[in-house]
Amino acid sequence: MECKKALTESHGNLAEAEAILRKKGIANAGKKSSRTAKEGSIASYIHLQGKVGVLVEVNCETDFVAKNEVFRDFVKDITLHIAAAHPLYVSRDQVPDKLVQAEREIYAAQVMGKPANIVDKIVDGKIDKFFSTVCLLEQAFIKNPDVTIHDILQSKIAELGENMIIRRFTRYMVGEDLVG
Amino acid sequence: MECKKALTESHGNLAEAEAILRKKGIANAGKKSSRTAKEGSIASYIHLQGKVGVLVEVNCETDFVAKNEVFRDFVKDITLHIAAAHPLYVSRDQVPDKLVQAEREIYAAQVMGKPANIVDKIVDGKIDKFFSTVCLLEQAFIKNPDVTIHDILQSKIAELGENMIIRRFTRYMVGEDLVG
Repeated sequence: MECKKALTESHGNLAEAEAILRKKGIANAGKKSSRTAKEGSIASYIHLQGKVGVLVEVNCETDFVAKNEVFRDFVKDITLHIAAAHPLYVSRDQVPDKLVQAEREIYAAQVMGKPANIVDKIVDGKIDKFFSTVCLLEQAFIKNPDVTIHDILQSKIAELGENMIIRRFTRYMVGEDLVG
Repeated sequence: MECKKALTESHGNLAEAEAILRKKGIANAGKKSSRTAKEGSIASYIHLQGKVGVLVEVNCETDFVAKNEVFRDFVKDITLHIAAAHPLYVSRDQVPDKLVQAEREIYAAQVMGKPANIVDKIVDGKIDKFFSTVCLLEQAFIKNPDVTIHDILQSKIAELGENMIIRRFTRYMVGEDLVG
């Protein structure tokens, strides 16, 4: 039905119809992200015969979607991604201010001597890069580096018609931070 | 070899020999617990089709033991136990002082008016009970409530001849602490 409408809107142009659909999906995803998501699923992934382990909670609105295969596959992909890409936070707002401040100072020191407006721009760029390294939602998806985890999340929200939240994750590596 | 010695020591009495062995095991376990354990295994358990999930890291001294079936089964049992018994901490020393203090005050208020030495004894008893509720190592094992997780850990240390540490765990339940 949506496809038919998009095709009409695009006067039969398939590529354009797809673009319209995607835009609608994203637009709908935006609307849906204000709805409460407290159902969902917890999934785990054990890598390298127990040397790395990941636990993830992804929320959705209904248990119906929580049991849906598309949702389950998405959650599974997130566990694989976290094992490989080891993010430290779900999103920007979870990165401690202190850490961001410390990073900014390092970047500023690296470009010392340049005009202030240029320094600001460079530092902002490096901070964005930093976030895309440590924040799950901003990381490039390991299975398709052209999209971020945020992009995939939005496309799944559009596909399944429910708000979804990657709520939290834990990643363990055997012996990490152990001295001796 | 150890069995033979124990049987000699117990003059052929099997039950007594077992007791001797167990005591030795525990004694050896005590010695081993000072050795560094930074190998090990991470295991997970997903319960109720994704409604509860557990991730655990258990350390041992060598990768050889980490791959041993007895060790792996032990780690698996720990994940099952945590899913069912939901401890909040591994051990007493991880429980925040503030929380212990708050609990003590509640217990003291419950027995107000009694002589101070009796109040202390009752409060101590209740705090022990509290620890055995929230600390993994002090919980009764769900598969055999006659022993604690600490007991099982000690027996596995004795059995496998390496120090082992239940280092950390995470337990997620879908939607817990979410309001809306």
